[in-house]
Amino acid sequence: MSSCLYEGKAKRIYSTDDPDRFRIAYKDEATAFDGEKKAQIEGKGKLNNEISCLIFARLKEAGVTSHWVKRLSETEQLVERVEIIPLEVVVRNIAAGSLVRHLGFEKGRVLNSPIFEWYYKDDDLGDPLINEDHIRELGVASKQQCEQMRTQAIQVNQVLKEIFLSMGITLVDFKLEFGLNSEGKIVLADEISPDTCRLWDKETNEPFDKDLFRFQLGDLQTGYEEIYYRLQGGKQ
Amino acid sequence: MSSCLYEGKAKRIYSTDDPDRFRIAYKDEATAFDGEKKAQIEGKGKLNNEISCLIFARLKEAGVTSHWVKRLSETEQLVERVEIIPLEVVVRNIAAGSLVRHLGFEKGRVLNSPIFEWYYKDDDLGDPLINEDHIRELGVASKQQCEQMRTQAIQVNQVLKEIFLSMGITLVDFKLEFGLNSEGKIVLADEISPDTCRLWDKETNEPFDKDLFRFQLGDLQTGYEEIYYRLQGGKQ
Ligand SMILES: Nc1ncnc2c1ncn2[C@@H]1O[C@H](COP(=O)(O)OP(=O)(O)OP(=O)(O)O)[C@@H](O)[C@H]1O
Ligand SMILES: Nc1ncnc2c1ncn2[C@@H]1O[C@H](COP(=O)(O)OP(=O)(O)OP(=O)(O)O)[C@@H](O)[C@H]1O
Ligand SMILES: [Mg+2]
Ligand SMILES: [Mg+2]
Repeated sequence: MSSCLYEGKAKRIYSTDDPDRFRIAYKDEATAFDGEKKAQIEGKGKLNNEISCLIFARLKEAGVTSHWVKRLSETEQLVERVEIIPLEVVVRNIAAGSLVRHLGFEKGRVLNSPIFEWYYKDDDLGDPLINEDHIRELGVASKQQCEQMRTQAIQVNQVLKEIFLSMGITLVDFKLEFGLNSEGKIVLADEISPDTCRLWDKETNEPFDKDLFRFQLGDLQTGYEEIYYRLQGGKQ
Repeated sequence: MSSCLYEGKAKRIYSTDDPDRFRIAYKDEATAFDGEKKAQIEGKGKLNNEISCLIFARLKEAGVTSHWVKRLSETEQLVERVEIIPLEVVVRNIAAGSLVRHLGFEKGRVLNSPIFEWYYKDDDLGDPLINEDHIRELGVASKQQCEQMRTQAIQVNQVLKEIFLSMGITLVDFKLEFGLNSEGKIVLADEISPDTCRLWDKETNEPFDKDLFRFQLGDLQTGYEEIYYRLQGGKQ
């Protein structure tokens, strides 16, 4: 009684009997560089689903709501149906990625305060960096909605930073997506996992995230398993 | 009694007897695409200097101060010495250039309100688009200084839009640079000319600006001469 509505690179979205609920099934596919680099990694779907469930649950405890309703199985979760706003919201605590490549920051430089960035979620355009004037003219979100996403993203950063720090991990940066629910309210959506966060060992700065796959720095599964283990309260 | 302190692609900066004054000499060099495309165009230095002088004078009449002190000769002007802030401030009224290339806007689309953009002035990095969080971390300007540049740029846009409209020309977009004078005050600097503005015929949308050279759309000199002629009060 459910059909696949959309298949992305990492997940499939299914309808459910409840028109306001979707089922998300996480796939074992790993992709990087706009889908240029691809691989099947056994267990990745389970790890991302389990980690994402634990993180959304922890955020909820801390008072940050999201589309996440509950875990359904090893690879599936139930979420609120939203209309995704075509923006990627990036928050950075430490310089890495495009800050190094495009702005010449030294990798690992601790930022004085978080850097907040908007990207226009459009594969054909290569998800370009934009500002709130562009957002207004693109018509994808109002000024007030931008303010709400910004406030929530900063809240998510504060909560996640603490969670990861207590696990011996530095939250370097992460990407969020938001959507509009059936009442037109802005809701944190998509996933929060090592696919969408940069996570470094607090002592050695070794990555536990998708950079393992992007730059062949090590075994993705081992990194993600360590995050999953520590999130469950395993020793650091 | 004056020595060349800096030679850019379009101008030379000379010291003067007054430590707070520079002499700017405009060159006949035309460049585009980060200096990849180059040519000597006789009379360009004169046209850019004369146009820039007329525009800074008109801005001054309208209450917008700048580094411009006075015209010295056909190709030279006297300006206040400033320390240039490594930012390029772009204001757009109509979609063109990178708005079309990177964000998929239709060329010529009239924007609901002006789009304001910051670029980091760094040739090695290719002058990337940035936001005020990047500016803070790069340490190139304070929040208050950004606010002052933004306010002045919007004022410049209002004044220039009217000046050009009365000449039968649409101000599509333009780039400004600011500097800090000896008292640490933010001052509008560099040049305002068809090298730094997109200017289209109000009726036909034909360009009168550096796009003539960039994309071989016509004779640069003829376009710039028309701007100079109309700025002096010549008929439209
Ligand atoms: N609660 C939700 N309701 C509707 N769509 C959602 C929800 N949460 C996430 N999505 C969307 O599900 C899609 C599938 O996720 P996946 O990560 O596989 O996409 P992707 O490969 O990153 O591609 P895309 O470029 O479409 O995001 C994404 O477009 C994502 O925005
Ligand atoms: N009042 C001023 N005081 C000091 N420098 C100035 C002033 N006005 C403009 N400049 C600087 O003069 C330099 C020469 O101008 P020109 O347009 O030739 O440079 P450019 O080729 O664009 O190179 P750049 O990348 O250095 O701007 C520029 O760096 C510009 O910022
Ligand atoms: Mg995705
Ligand atoms: Mg210049």
